[in-house]
Amino acid sequence: MKFKKSKAQWVYGFGGGHADGNAGLKELLGGKGANLAEMSNLGLSVPPGFTISTEVCVHYYANGRAYPETLKREVQKALSRVEKIAGGKFGHRKKPLLLSVRSGAQASMPGMMDTVLNIGLNDENVERLGELSKDRRFAWDSYRRFLQMYGDVVLDVPHYLFEDILELYKTEHGLNLDTDLAAEDWQAIAGAYKARIEQELGVPFPQDPEAQLWGAIGAVFDSWMNQRAITYRRLHDIPEDWGTAVTVQAMVFGNMGEDCATGVAFTRNPATGEKDFYGEFLVNAQGEDVVAGIRTPQPMTERARLQAGSSAPSMETTMPEVYAELCDMRDRLESHFRDMQDIEFTVQRKKLWVLQTRNGKRTMSAALKIAVDMTEEGLITHEEAIRRIDPAALDQMLHPTLDPDAEQTVLASGLPASPGAATGRIVFTAAEAETEAARGASVILVRVETSPEDIHGMHAAAGILTTRGGLTSHAAVVARGMGRPCVSGAGDIRINEEAGEMRIGDCVLKRGDVLTIDGAKGNVLLGEVPMRQPELSGDFAIVMDWADRVRRLGVRANAETPQDAEVARRFGAEGIGLCRTEHMFFEGSRILAVREMILADGTEARRAALAKLLPMQRDDFVEIFRAMAGLPVTIRLLDPPLHEFLPKTDAEMQDLAAKLGFDAGEVKVRIERLHEMNPMLGHRGCRLGITYPEIYEMQARAIFEAVVALAEKTGEAVVPEIMIPLVTSRKEFDFLKELIERVAGEVLSAEGEKLAYQIGTMIELPRAALRAAEIAKSAEFFSFGTNDLTQTTFGISRDDAGGFLKSYLEKKLIEKDPFATLDIDGVGELVRIAVERGRAARGDLHLGICGEHGGDPASIAFCEEIGLDYVSCSPYRVPIARLAAAHAALKKA
Amino acid sequence: MKFKKSKAQWVYGFGGGHADGNAGLKELLGGKGANLAEMSNLGLSVPPGFTISTEVCVHYYANGRAYPETLKREVQKALSRVEKIAGGKFGHRKKPLLLSVRSGAQASMPGMMDTVLNIGLNDENVERLGELSKDRRFAWDSYRRFLQMYGDVVLDVPHYLFEDILELYKTEHGLNLDTDLAAEDWQAIAGAYKARIEQELGVPFPQDPEAQLWGAIGAVFDSWMNQRAITYRRLHDIPEDWGTAVTVQAMVFGNMGEDCATGVAFTRNPATGEKDFYGEFLVNAQGEDVVAGIRTPQPMTERARLQAGSSAPSMETTMPEVYAELCDMRDRLESHFRDMQDIEFTVQRKKLWVLQTRNGKRTMSAALKIAVDMTEEGLITHEEAIRRIDPAALDQMLHPTLDPDAEQTVLASGLPASPGAATGRIVFTAAEAETEAARGASVILVRVETSPEDIHGMHAAAGILTTRGGLTSHAAVVARGMGRPCVSGAGDIRINEEAGEMRIGDCVLKRGDVLTIDGAKGNVLLGEVPMRQPELSGDFAIVMDWADRVRRLGVRANAETPQDAEVARRFGAEGIGLCRTEHMFFEGSRILAVREMILADGTEARRAALAKLLPMQRDDFVEIFRAMAGLPVTIRLLDPPLHEFLPKTDAEMQDLAAKLGFDAGEVKVRIERLHEMNPMLGHRGCRLGITYPEIYEMQARAIFEAVVALAEKTGEAVVPEIMIPLVTSRKEFDFLKELIERVAGEVLSAEGEKLAYQIGTMIELPRAALRAAEIAKSAEFFSFGTNDLTQTTFGISRDDAGGFLKSYLEKKLIEKDPFATLDIDGVGELVRIAVERGRAARGDLHLGICGEHGGDPASIAFCEEIGLDYVSCSPYRVPIARLAAAHAALKKA
Repeated sequence: MKFKKSKAQWVYGFGGGHADGNAGLKELLGGKGANLAEMSNLGLSVPPGFTISTEVCVHYYANGRAYPETLKREVQKALSRVEKIAGGKFGHRKKPLLLSVRSGAQASMPGMMDTVLNIGLNDENVERLGELSKDRRFAWDSYRRFLQMYGDVVLDVPHYLFEDILELYKTEHGLNLDTDLAAEDWQAIAGAYKARIEQELGVPFPQDPEAQLWGAIGAVFDSWMNQRAITYRRLHDIPEDWGTAVTVQAMVFGNMGEDCATGVAFTRNPATGEKDFYGEFLVNAQGEDVVAGIRTPQPMTERARLQAGSSAPSMETTMPEVYAELCDMRDRLESHFRDMQDIEFTVQRKKLWVLQTRNGKRTMSAALKIAVDMTEEGLITHEEAIRRIDPAALDQMLHPTLDPDAEQTVLASGLPASPGAATGRIVFTAAEAETEAARGASVILVRVETSPEDIHGMHAAAGILTTRGGLTSHAAVVARGMGRPCVSGAGDIRINEEAGEMRIGDCVLKRGDVLTIDGAKGNVLLGEVPMRQPELSGDFAIVMDWADRVRRLGVRANAETPQDAEVARRFGAEGIGLCRTEHMFFEGSRILAVREMILADGTEARRAALAKLLPMQRDDFVEIFRAMAGLPVTIRLLDPPLHEFLPKTDAEMQDLAAKLGFDAGEVKVRIERLHEMNPMLGHRGCRLGITYPEIYEMQARAIFEAVVALAEKTGEAVVPEIMIPLVTSRKEFDFLKELIERVAGEVLSAEGEKLAYQIGTMIELPRAALRAAEIAKSAEFFSFGTNDLTQTTFGISRDDAGGFLKSYLEKKLIEKDPFATLDIDGVGELVRIAVERGRAARGDLHLGICGEHGGDPASIAFCEEIGLDYVSCSPYRVPIARLAAAHAALKKA
Repeated sequence: MKFKKSKAQWVYGFGGGHADGNAGLKELLGGKGANLAEMSNLGLSVPPGFTISTEVCVHYYANGRAYPETLKREVQKALSRVEKIAGGKFGHRKKPLLLSVRSGAQASMPGMMDTVLNIGLNDENVERLGELSKDRRFAWDSYRRFLQMYGDVVLDVPHYLFEDILELYKTEHGLNLDTDLAAEDWQAIAGAYKARIEQELGVPFPQDPEAQLWGAIGAVFDSWMNQRAITYRRLHDIPEDWGTAVTVQAMVFGNMGEDCATGVAFTRNPATGEKDFYGEFLVNAQGEDVVAGIRTPQPMTERARLQAGSSAPSMETTMPEVYAELCDMRDRLESHFRDMQDIEFTVQRKKLWVLQTRNGKRTMSAALKIAVDMTEEGLITHEEAIRRIDPAALDQMLHPTLDPDAEQTVLASGLPASPGAATGRIVFTAAEAETEAARGASVILVRVETSPEDIHGMHAAAGILTTRGGLTSHAAVVARGMGRPCVSGAGDIRINEEAGEMRIGDCVLKRGDVLTIDGAKGNVLLGEVPMRQPELSGDFAIVMDWADRVRRLGVRANAETPQDAEVARRFGAEGIGLCRTEHMFFEGSRILAVREMILADGTEARRAALAKLLPMQRDDFVEIFRAMAGLPVTIRLLDPPLHEFLPKTDAEMQDLAAKLGFDAGEVKVRIERLHEMNPMLGHRGCRLGITYPEIYEMQARAIFEAVVALAEKTGEAVVPEIMIPLVTSRKEFDFLKELIERVAGEVLSAEGEKLAYQIGTMIELPRAALRAAEIAKSAEFFSFGTNDLTQTTFGISRDDAGGFLKSYLEKKLIEKDPFATLDIDGVGELVRIAVERGRAARGDLHLGICGEHGGDPASIAFCEEIGLDYVSCSPYRVPIARLAAAHAALKKA
């Protein structure tokens, strides 16, 4: 905890125009509590309440789930204040005040933790509530809701038991919809619920409001450690020790009749970023009804209604006065919080109450538009605009969308819940989605609706399709947050999970069939549909331009083909940081020559095979140099062990022997001789260049001849940076440097040209990092190969880590997958050591990173901190790296 | 070079009672040159000469094989001085002075570099040499020897060409032995040699003595870089940049008649260390004849003659005056050099000349006896005695010898050339020896005689058997140096290399047949003969006792069985530093339960299988604790990946499935699922304990129950040190520490005992070393697993390094195999970091090393330097480690 208080204060009141806290106290009060306090201070109509701070949560878990001593007293005091403002009395027979208890952590964790509403109701005061509200049905409905929610959340009575009772009652009485049930029906059901709870627990449902309140508070604190919440925190990098706050608030009711409503609104469109008032509401409903997606909600504005072609009347026309009030609130909140807000509100008998405001989740294109618009509106600065864009989330902008010119067979339509398009095989459960994705398959998760239990599977899926729920349903909110395309509420689709199939009219699709969804339009399409590269213009280009002006780190791409190189350039790469020459070896016509080279008997035969490869490699380099004209290209000499290029089965070996005119038995023997126990630590990298210098000679020759050829054709000078992989000492490096320089001399004297080039190395083994001072005396640049450096520093083979890394993450033995985000404490220390020693030995040593961490924002921040010159990542991650580099520069400044 | 001179001096004269140099200048003059200077200064009769320093060699190679400018002038000056003392003139027709040119590096490299004798002879002065020596035959014999040697060494004319000429001449003239040839015969042969040389080279043999001399000097400098010398340096860790000196010396002749002789003598017996005058000589011979082992030489003393049952008369009786002179010289040299000397001498017409003295090579038992005796004689101190024993060479003392009670079929006898016994398959070439040894076979290299070309194969062989040559033959000297048992001169054996067989009388043995040699007795035995553990008493025990008093480092053993533990104790181990629990898993009856455990479907089934293993592991620990009673035992929990325990072939899998009552297909699937790409970096070590905590629970339970059981039986308290392998972070360690502590608590509360134990970790991954400060907050001890630490720091799999490490050594890209001797610059830095950080976090952190480096003297010196508490190595290396630790302590002090 960063803040200090002279005296412990566990409870913070709000409401009635002022509050103990404010928006700055998110760490202490959670996002929800802090913003409720802030809104109270602003004088907005917030139901009064109080927030039990996150410190209580920390205390709770540090002390075997016990509360601080003074908590009870503070809660009583805060509750008295709420009663005073709200004008009721908690647990009172005559003037019962009902309460809600909600979680609220520093970061939003929608749906992950528990909520209990209508606390304070009991057999004694339920009828009185009916009298006061003049709505007996409402009172008994509220009571049965309370019994069900409290029973499920606090008392652990499975919720299907309640549902069974309700269904049975409906069947027995020939009733269909909930709205068909009268007060007496709800009363009977409430009785049945209570009986069932007593049967399950052996004790009656707690009638004492005080006991109810503390039960609910405890349940919310406990839900901080439920499996859903733990998984969510892991996926979103939320530290466990933050804890959650608990907000206790006077209830207001959107379900007290036709002049009541509840809704969710965004101050700007969260899908597009456009500046219009966007949202949904339901008349005579509780807030949970909107989010759960059970009833299809109504639009806020007429414009939205017309756009959606909906017949449900908008709030603008239904409740014009409340709508005007809401518009005013929207303006005040956005200009106060200086960001797009996601507002929850309730209308109780025409009175507008705001229950929550928070920065609204939005799609990446909306985020870009809002950031650019708000900058132009003068609301935020350029730097704030940059900071508002999460580099990791930019990913969703950088993936293909459907080609509008392609033929599309639209099977069904739903809501455009999260933009982007995805093609994949149909799966019907989250578990299936995970399994198939782990096998490398792209899958579309198809569900009636999603729940927090599904987030694993949603994360694993390429896209999500639901048959129920609106734009603010669970599926929609979570998919947008994850950057997964999502179509929600595609009501024409019928799912039969057991049969493993879904029907759309007459069309039956089975588990494993291929489907495409277009999250931008809300369409479900048959089979695979051609995609198109994203347009990286408009707001995107503006923000990237701002980011480029701020960042210090260069951004290059890892690319082996002219196509990759072109994509990289288009995405703003400033050069190639890693061109893996072996990728050129796998291509159809070459692999035979490569295999001939590997199986050659002696140096002369190997040279003969290499001579065949030379013109092919040279042409590759010519093409890449041309694509990157004017920009640096770092070329890594052959790295993988030779057996990777060889066939595995006897049949393939025989085929190869026939093609090469070799003896089949001999080919098999030679291939077997190349087998390695641990290829990752085997005969690869510069070890190949040292044992078979002729291979690196050929590659060096191809590079230099390509430079000369291109210079002759185009007059453009390329400065190749030749990178020697897997070095552990200066001696190894020098041996090969000498070889490369000799070849350069030969090519030059043959061509009579003058040639500039650099020779450097990858730092990808612990020993290389430790010996950086020596190596830098010879090497002109270092590129950190953090994939292999992570493997060797941890002693973990990435190929084999599946068996235990998951267990490590679950048991919290590591915070993040070290292959995704650089392990700063271990691997990072070696990188830091190498930077310090390398620079001390050679002041102008050029330093970059080319492992996959080069495209990871957290790792990029580390690269900025230690002063690397550039990062290199996959072409599609270049924009992410550019933005992350800007963030890192702003953070450092 | 450590020494500095104000003015360059390249040549150092000696002879005539004084010298420019002395014994302290070995770096500059080489061992031979420095000792010749020292002997001159002592007034011993040394043929005058001069030494061209090692600096010239360094200059020669640094300047494209060119000499320093002033060298020629200095050589001329030194030569004049030699002529003055010797009373002849180099190249003179009337008073021809002949010279020898010999190599001499700082370290002895016997036979590796070239020598040329009789330089200065030519057509003009050969007859004059006959007149002066009154022996025309001697003169022409000397000339033809010179032509042959110079032709071979300097002019690169293959030596078999000369041998062919000689053989042909003998055949044509019906002559048999060299002694049958008269002056005229040698004259004719010399003529034929010259003709052949001219035919080969196209120019006549150089007649100018000056040209001859410089040719010979150049050849010796060139021989520093011949393949033999390079290999020898690599095997003996001699740096290339030392260079060799060249000693030019006036010739003296042991082959000028029956009052001439040449010989080699040791001041004490180099095989046993006994204080008697030991050696061999040949009448009327040149020095080379003794070393080459072509004629069987005569003993020095009567006592030796009687002992050997030889009929060849001893020098004591043949040349009593010279013998007396030699005895006097022996006393002077040994008391002056304070070590056993190996002396080369020549008697020319009854005048004794000493040509060389150096510290004599000796067997390890001789070294021990000499060190102990000399200490008792007051010649050297205890510390010097310790320093005199090379820990690495101690190895030869620590291996089994023949069981004297075993039945032995002696096939043949030879000379006891190097002690120890060895059993192995017969091979006839060095190449075969290398190949077979690389396949893991124990081989006996059988040769007529060995030459420097064979050292590769001698190194690879378990023992060496020759049919020719004496105790100072090449085979004998080299085998003693390498610690290989050797029987030399077993003349009854006839080798037919082409047929791949050897005959001893009627007995025919073929390549691959098993043979045993007893190097202590000189016997060759049929088949395998039972061996006996070495007796580690007497001088050995005395020196070890002195070493133990000097050393600071503790010495433990790596042992898994009670037998190993007992050997370790007998060898002086002070505990077990590494008990690998998985070794207990492989034993016959257990492997089934282990496999059942691995293939178990779920935790419960695994627990059931583990319950079967528990009593077996407990019993193992009881036995080991009993064997090590009172000493610490470090137990490493299960480390290897589980697939190592599983069958590989389909047949074995089916068999296993049947035994376990599992489905065969399912067994195969489960085994395949456990396959790993890089097992070294896979699911092993503490990763097993984290994913399957029940395995480590069982092991911890077995350990604690064993401690309790033993305490109940014997009353002896054992303090087990439980070691968690492959840790990368404190979190991993804590997770398992908690588990072990829980089990300890359970066993204790069940048994009502009080138990002391420690929990520590292996530091074997770079990240563990870097995070040592954190880990040491929880771990009570660190043991450096330098095998894996070397693999990960270098990124080299030891199993796969064969393909390139040899190339690295040959190309000098690494100095030593980092798996044999700790890489101090890289791996060592990580160890140092871990020591510093670990100790800073926990002052009493106990530190040891248990990789194979724990038995390597150079690595032990590093362990002393960085302040480890102990080293742990294989039981047979414990004495080596004790002595090496003493050396390290002396070096540090």
